[in-house]
Order: sequence, then C-alpha cells, then structure tokens
Amino acid sequence: MVYRTQEFIDRLNQLHFSGMYDGDFFLTWEKTDEEIAAVFAVADALRALRENNISTKIFESGLGVSLFRDNSTRTRFSFASACNLLGLEVQDLDEGKSQIAHGETVRETANMISFMADAIGIRDDMYIGKGNRYMRDVVKAVTEGHRQGVLEQKPTLVNLQCDIDHPTQCMADMLHVIHEFGGVENLKGKKVAMTWAYSPSYGKPLSVPQGVIGLMTRFGMDVVLAHPEGYEVMPEVEEVARANAAKSGGSFTKTGSMAEAFRDADIVYPKSWAPFAAMEKRTDLYAKGDTEGIKALEKVLLAQNAEHKDWCCTEELMATTRGGKALYLHCLPADINGVSCEDGEVEASVFDRYRTPLYKQASFKPYIIAAMIFLAKVKEPQTMLKALEDRGTERLFRK
Amino acid sequence: MVYRTQEFIDRLNQLHFSGMYDGDFFLTWEKTDEEIAAVFAVADALRALRENNISTKIFESGLGVSLFRDNSTRTRFSFASACNLLGLEVQDLDEGKSQIAHGETVRETANMISFMADAIGIRDDMYIGKGNRYMRDVVKAVTEGHRQGVLEQKPTLVNLQCDIDHPTQCMADMLHVIHEFGGVENLKGKKVAMTWAYSPSYGKPLSVPQGVIGLMTRFGMDVVLAHPEGYEVMPEVEEVARANAAKSGGSFTKTGSMAEAFRDADIVYPKSWAPFAAMEKRTDLYAKGDTEGIKALEKVLLAQNAEHKDWCCTEELMATTRGGKALYLHCLPADINGVSCEDGEVEASVFDRYRTPLYKQASFKPYIIAAMIFLAKVKEPQTMLKALEDRGTERLFRK
Amino acid sequence: MVYRTQEFIDRLNQLHFSGMYDGDFFLTWEKTDEEIAAVFAVADALRALRENNISTKIFESGLGVSLFRDNSTRTRFSFASACNLLGLEVQDLDEGKSQIAHGETVRETANMISFMADAIGIRDDMYIGKGNRYMRDVVKAVTEGHRQGVLEQKPTLVNLQCDIDHPTQCMADMLHVIHEFGGVENLKGKKVAMTWAYSPSYGKPLSVPQGVIGLMTRFGMDVVLAHPEGYEVMPEVEEVARANAAKSGGSFTKTGSMAEAFRDADIVYPKSWAPFAAMEKRTDLYAKGDTEGIKALEKVLLAQNAEHKDWCCTEELMATTRGGKALYLHCLPADINGVSCEDGEVEASVFDRYRTPLYKQASFKPYIIAAMIFLAKVKEPQTMLKALEDRGTERLFRK
Repeated sequence: MVYRTQEFIDRLNQLHFSGMYDGDFFLTWEKTDEEIAAVFAVADALRALRENNISTKIFESGLGVSLFRDNSTRTRFSFASACNLLGLEVQDLDEGKSQIAHGETVRETANMISFMADAIGIRDDMYIGKGNRYMRDVVKAVTEGHRQGVLEQKPTLVNLQCDIDHPTQCMADMLHVIHEFGGVENLKGKKVAMTWAYSPSYGKPLSVPQGVIGLMTRFGMDVVLAHPEGYEVMPEVEEVARANAAKSGGSFTKTGSMAEAFRDADIVYPKSWAPFAAMEKRTDLYAKGDTEGIKALEKVLLAQNAEHKDWCCTEELMATTRGGKALYLHCLPADINGVSCEDGEVEASVFDRYRTPLYKQASFKPYIIAAMIFLAKVKEPQTMLKALEDRGTERLFRK
Repeated sequence: MVYRTQEFIDRLNQLHFSGMYDGDFFLTWEKTDEEIAAVFAVADALRALRENNISTKIFESGLGVSLFRDNSTRTRFSFASACNLLGLEVQDLDEGKSQIAHGETVRETANMISFMADAIGIRDDMYIGKGNRYMRDVVKAVTEGHRQGVLEQKPTLVNLQCDIDHPTQCMADMLHVIHEFGGVENLKGKKVAMTWAYSPSYGKPLSVPQGVIGLMTRFGMDVVLAHPEGYEVMPEVEEVARANAAKSGGSFTKTGSMAEAFRDADIVYPKSWAPFAAMEKRTDLYAKGDTEGIKALEKVLLAQNAEHKDWCCTEELMATTRGGKALYLHCLPADINGVSCEDGEVEASVFDRYRTPLYKQASFKPYIIAAMIFLAKVKEPQTMLKALEDRGTERLFRK
Repeated sequence: MVYRTQEFIDRLNQLHFSGMYDGDFFLTWEKTDEEIAAVFAVADALRALRENNISTKIFESGLGVSLFRDNSTRTRFSFASACNLLGLEVQDLDEGKSQIAHGETVRETANMISFMADAIGIRDDMYIGKGNRYMRDVVKAVTEGHRQGVLEQKPTLVNLQCDIDHPTQCMADMLHVIHEFGGVENLKGKKVAMTWAYSPSYGKPLSVPQGVIGLMTRFGMDVVLAHPEGYEVMPEVEEVARANAAKSGGSFTKTGSMAEAFRDADIVYPKSWAPFAAMEKRTDLYAKGDTEGIKALEKVLLAQNAEHKDWCCTEELMATTRGGKALYLHCLPADINGVSCEDGEVEASVFDRYRTPLYKQASFKPYIIAAMIFLAKVKEPQTMLKALEDRGTERLFRK
C-alpha cells in the first residue's frame, strides 16, 4: 500500500491520549508527551492520506470559526486549510483589533457563533495576560452552553497564537525537525539555539520563543535561549523549559551571546521578539488609554532595539554550527538583510539556502491544526483512520 | 428510533403549505397559520436530525448569498449556520452601509450574484420604507432573470430583518415559547407583554416589536404592547396584530404603563426601540443628505429617551408577573444595568437568571432560517425528510 | 437523455488540448484554437450537467484562492460560483489595493496560501506591466514549491483580469456570441465593432478591448477596432489580432469613426477605456509616488475624455447595424445615459432592449472559469464528464 495508515495506527496504539477527546489545545505543556506524540502521528497520517488522494473529511457539515485580533494571512489560510481538510466550512468572526471583550460579551458571543461550530481557532497575541485568558473564557462559555443544551456540540478550541504560547507553530516546527532528522529517536543530545535577532520592527510577540523552549526541551535536546539583556521571556515559561529538560534528559541554558548559542548547534531559530517587561508595560498603558505613554515607550524600545543590530544570522555564524550545516528555522516572514529591510534577522544568502526547508516547515501547520481538532472530536482515532482508508473517497474524483 | 422524523412528517401531513414552494419569506403575516406551523415543524425536524448526527444537506453544491447593510455577527452566523446545515456555501455581498441601490443596479447586481445562488439573506433595517422594498426589488429581479433563462434557479429570499418585520427572529422567539410551554396548544389565554425599555443607545429598529405583535397575536394569546408616548410602532402593523387577535381568539391591547403590561404576564419581552415617527424623519433627512438635521434630531431623541430610564425590567416588576416567573425574552444583545451600561433594559440579576433560556431562544434561529429555505426549495418536504432519514448520512463520520 | 454529455464528449474527441493539463490560463492567444474550443465545450458540458441537477463536483475538498487588487463583486461571485461548482471552497486573500508585492514576498505568500489550494484566481489590472507579470511570478513560485515537495499539488492560475487580457470575460462574451449565432460555424464573415465609448469615469482598464480583439479575430470574423485619437491599445495586442485574422480568414481593421464601425455590424461592443499611453505614464508616476503628477495627469485625461461625449451607442447608430439588430455586448456595469450618469456609453432604450442577452452573456463566466480549472486539473476530461454523468449525484437531493 502506498499510504501507510497502518503505520500511524501502530504508533497511536502505543500511546495514551484519551484525555484529548472532547478537549481543547491551549498550551503544549498542558499535554503529556504521549499526547504530543499523538498529534504528530495524526498529522502525519492525515498528510499521507491526502497525498494519496484519500479524503480525510470526518465532518459532512459544520463550521470552523476563526477569530483573529490582527490581520494574519498565513494563520488564516492554515486554519482554513485544516478545516477544509476535515470538512468544516470557515466563518471568520471579526471583533476588531483593539477591542478586548469582557465577561458577558464573551460568554454571549461565544455561544451565538457556536450553534453549528465544531472548532474555534483564536489568535490573540497582542496583550500580555489577555490572549490565553480570553481563549479560556470562550471555552468556559461554550462548555456551559453545551452542558445546558444550548449547543448541540462543544466546539474545540485551537490556540492559534496567544501571549504565552504558539502551539500550532511550534508543533509544526517540531514535526519538521523530526522529519529532517529522520525521527524523534535521533534528537537526543542535539543542540537547539533559540536566539533573539534584530528586526527594525520592534514588538513582535514572545509566543514563538516561549513556545519553542516550552516544547523542544521535551525531546532530550540541549536547548539554548540567547538574547540581549532586557529581552527576557516570561519566567514561568523558562521554568517549564527547565522542568522539561530535567525530565527528558536534555538541558535548558541561557546565554547573552548569539555566537555561543550558535556554536556547534544542530538547529538554529534566530528571531526577533519584544522584551516581556516592555510588553507588560504596553498592556497597562493600553488599558489606561495612555496614547502618549505608548508613543514614549515605543521610542525607548526602538532605541534599545537599534543597539543590537549585530544580532543577525550571518554566514559567518552559520559556519560555526555543527558542520556549518545547522537546520535553520523561522516561523516566517523573516526580516532579510537587503531584501525586506536594510538590517534584519538573517543574511539573504542564508535565507536563500534554506528557503525550501522553511516552506516545508510551514507546510506542517495545517496538518497540526487538523490533528488537534481530529483528536478532540474523534473518540477512537485509530478506528477512524482505518475507516477513512477503507471508505477511500477520492479527494480529486478520478474514477 | 431516537429521532422522531415521522412525528414531524405527521405534523406536516395535517397542514397545507404548498404555496411556500418556490416562494420567499418577507413578512410573517403574509403566510397562513398553517404555513407558519410548517416552518416550525421543519425547523424542529432539522434540529432533531442534526442532534442525531443525521445530515440534512439537501444541496450538494450551491451558494447562499448574505447581504447585510450593517455589521451583524449574530445574524451572519445564523444565516451561515442555516446554509451550512443545508449544504450551501455562504458568500457575503458587501454593498456598504449607507449606499441604497436603485433600479438598474439592484436588478443587475441581483442577477450577477445569483448564477449559482439558491438562497439570498438580506438584512436592511435602517431606513423606514426602504429595507422591505429593497428585498422585493431583488426578488423581482431574480424571478425575471430565472424566467428569461439567465438564472438556472430562482434563489429564495429570506428577510433577515427589515424596516417592518424581523421574521427569523420572531419565529425563533415563538418556537422557543412553544417549546417552553410544552406545545402550541398550551398558549391560549397566555399574556404576552411586548414592552419598550430604556437603552442609552436610542435608534434601535422597530422590527422586533412589530414582528412580535404581528406574530404572537396568532396563537390566541393576550398580547399587550406597552411604550411611553412618542414610541408608537407602525400603525399598519398594529392593524395586523388586531386582526390576528380577533381571528385567533386572543387580544391585542396597548398601554402606556410597563407595570400594567407586566402584571400577571406569562411572557415578557422588554426591549428598546426608536420612535417610528422619528425614524421616518431620519430617513427623509438622510435622503436629503441633511447631516445637520440628523444631528439635531439625534439630540432631541436622546433627550426624549433619557426621560424614560424608569422603563427597565427590574426584579420588582418581574415579581408581578404570573407566579413571579414569566418567561423573559430578548433578541440579544441586551443592555444590562451595570454590565453593558449604567441604566439599561434589564437588571443584571434578572438577565442572569434567564441566561440559558435566552441562549436557547437564539439557538432556534438557524433552524428557522433553514426551514424557510427548505420549504421554498423542496417540493415534497415530508418525502424529503423521510429520504434524509433513510439516507442516514452521518454529519460526523463515525463508522 | 435530456442532458447531452455525449455530445460534448464527441466535440472534445475531435480536439487536441492535452497541453492544458496541469497548466494555467494567462492569455487567450497563448492557447491554440483547439484548446479554446475545448474550454467552450467543457463550459457547455458543465452547464448542461448543472441544468440537469447533476453534480459537477470533481473536488471533495480543496481551496480556491481569490486575490483581487480592487473590489469586485461580480468577478468575486463568478470565481466563487466556479469553485463551488467544482467542489472548492473559496478563501479570499486580501493584499490591499495599492501594495504591489515583489520577489521574496510573492514567492513566499504564494506558497503559504497554497498548501491546500487547487486553484488561484487573480485580478490585477490597475498598472501597466504589473498584473500579468505578477500572475506569472505566482505560478513560478507554486510550481517550484510543488517540485520541491512543499505543495502536494500545483494550484492552477486563472487570470481574472490583468493589464493585458481579460480571458474569462472575453471567452464568456465569445461563448455567448456562439450561442446567439447558433454555432461557431455561423460566424465567418460576421462584422464585430469593438468601439470606444464615452464614460464620465476615465481610466477603465484596457483588458476588455484588448481581450476582445485578441480573441474574436480567431473565428473568421471582420473585427473593427474604433476609438478617438489618443485611445490606442497596446500595439502588441493589435499585432496578435492582425495575425489571428490572417490565419482565420477574417480581418482586423481600425477606424477613428464609431459610425463606420457600427455600419452593418453584426455585433457591437461599445465600451470606455483609458488611453494606453496615459496608463503607462500613470504607472510610472505611481511607482515614483508622484501624487501631484497623478492629479495633473487625471485632469488632462478628464479634459481629453470630455471631448468625446459623442461616442455613445445611440438608437440612431444601432439602426445602422445589420438589419438594425446587431447583438449588443457589454461586460457590465455599463454607463447608461440618464440612469447611471448624464452622458455615458449607451442610451437607456438600447440597454433596456438588450438587458436579458447582456445578463446571459455574463452568465457564461462562472462556467468558463470552471472549465479552465477543470482542464488544468483533469487528465482525461472526456472520461471525467462521462464519470460525472454515470455517478449521477444530484445537486439538489430529490430522491
């Protein structure tokens, strides 16, 4: 058989993940190692089925609701692709960029949009302490709505990026790493450099570096977090990374030197992010409606930022990685020197060399999202995968 | 059998509603009592099928076109849910808020969007004399287009709220009432208080109170319309209510006292709306492009409005209803004292107590819309319901 | 049999068009006569199937991505209808009106939106030298992405209007002409007047007149291009028209007189467009960000435009056509005297008389788009059409 559904079923048979049924996906570190492995197995299985023209539609009708606080072509298309893959029609809920809904409104809106919703994907990453909280409020509301008989089904929530974690991105990154290294069993002892890099646009979310150290420390790898002083990430997430590393037999260390992080690294992830403390301050100023204060803060941040233009993923630095051939990761779009900006996160020749792997890295995201929905909606995933194969509906009709 | 399709078929077998085939839904009072009952029966049947995981997709492809003059998350999702339930893909037509299309443009656009459209849902409630008229122009255009061979099918129009009626809302309200009271046969002699209530945002459409008195008077209930002086609704609709009451053996009365309306009421529907006369004036000013005039009018209206802050659904008033337990209705979102505003339509503790029934009330809307489309598109609804059950396609694949 | 699938299969059996498989549709003159004929045959076949309630969904899931540089209700609905007809769900990509993406961004975005995309429809007609170029960049990117294993399928590109051609419009126009004249065999020697007409809004794209002369010269007709001095179209496209005419046994001539073009014409297509030279200048000014220059140019163009108000499709002119009954074509919306403007492209009574044929003309577009996608995605179109008929899935479930 060309497609290897049984292989994925065998993988799933060795894992315990029944807790994911009827659940939601907020943070990777709330899931067990076996649950994380189950997401990867289902993502691979769905991809194999699609590549073999076998339909993976488990829904014959139903809605997937997307809610984005800011414009996001890529995330929107990833979510739409995942929904389409499973048979859900996407409906976008536009609540506006700046409006942060509270209490009654969240509870009510969450129910009003969910009468036919099987999945809700939310991206809300702009304000510290808000995004993840908002997602949990939505889940609380629809869970109650379902319990009370208002909703015929409880939609499953997929965190498409919050102030704390970016699980769909980081799990796509990780699945890419697993494929590039030929299996999760080959990752022990590999060195990962999650490092800050300069970008002219300050203020990028912290969810990627936090998500990466919170996830990649689970695989026995040596994860190094590097950044200039003042660009600390959330201490709680560093604590997660430390605990993960201790448990997995890997390590989690920090350094203020990009060069040190890159030295002998097997994987590098150089990316700009905003200082956590500044983001907290911005959230407070925003809550107070202090526009002048926000402007002043931005000025300070840009000046601080500009002092670190030397934090760039250069050819010189890449040469210091393991065999000069570390796997370069980025969540895209990257700030490329001389292409999208004068000085940025990466030199053009480095980016060029890794373009195809970078695009492949991104290509896992729709499948990761679909797998998260699948595991929340399907009681017996192995049986379902077998049933999809047996049903054998062609995605592109060919008979 | 868990799902009771035969029960709904039996109900339909006792009704005459063949006039709905190939029709449209503009105003409830243009439909016979049996046609209204048929919508309820089909809505219940579709819901029962979905709750039992049986697909109700009667369309294998086709578009449902939504046209909203103002932003409307809830109506949008209700329509999208109904379309999805039947197998239609939603395409939004954005004509802009203020632009009122005329003659040639309406005729042409209506045809250009309808080549694959099986249903068109329009919400156009902002200007007196315009919304319902616009819907009829659209229907005229597509009917002619179909007759001339331009369109392979005539899309059915569903009025998602106009200047006169709000049929999908009021029929969802009514179906909720029927379920809460255990059947339409239990409604005779029940007292309904449709009353004005204060809201800081003046200018809400009249379609809800008009729709409620135009529909609920058909069931032998005693419907009381209460509002302060100056908040009259359209006289034509009051006439409809009076005629309905006479025919159904109920009554339709008016009062200027909220307390009188609430006394011994079985059902209360306290809700803000704008004065009809003022809305007419605003429409004229708008047509003349008289921005200063509109501003001046708004000032007067807000001042007039502020004199009636005592029109609020309080615990004290609720205590005067039948057993202190009248069913509280609202089309949502409500203006809740101390939650969404300082003074509003309802006290927070009243709203809290009725939250679940209110959400349930809203949950009927997608099924009402779907039933309206179903009855316009399916020549033999009973046969189709049986066929859907026999087909037995699972909504969420489980085999 | 009511639907004549075999008839269309027979037509296709006489044509060579295997080069369309896995291809794209940029310009009609890049396709052979037989490939153009194959698009017409498949469009007719899909329409016949739909008219007979037979599903033409060849995709069980998958996305159709639409990318429009400007608002376009009609094109949007045509593309959405075509995708829906084939089973693709539409996802709109909004890149903004003015932003012209370059190099890395195009390459990356094209891949990021295409993980599940089977078709991409682009309308980008505002700047000379940009639109068609952009489409080719997108195709290059996704072709490379597919080759590298990033994309499981290469989406097919459909040009929904560019700076050079408007193939879906002009092929819909042409299919309408073929039907009106009872077959392509009846077109030899017919006179077509593609003429400029006055509109108060200067600056309409040249893609329609260019597309018309580039396509209609292929059928042995006598195509006359008429416009005032200064309203020349691209010389390259005139060259295409000349070569087509020579090959097809028809003719391509130019005149500066609308009356001469209309005289004894069988088909007239009076429509406003902008002067090519001015559009080139505007593109340069835009690239330089020269707002003042653009304003000055607009002034000149409007003045120049206003000198030609006599270029109107009047009853008087229509009377001079073959038997006074030429087929009047327009891509809609038209500028109608006394309806959408004071002076425009056509007199109201002429437009009124041709309304139904005009709407029919437009009704071919969704089928043309669907046929382009079909021929790019289906390896054996004849076998597929037979299979769709044999499958016999009802579009509107009736069993």
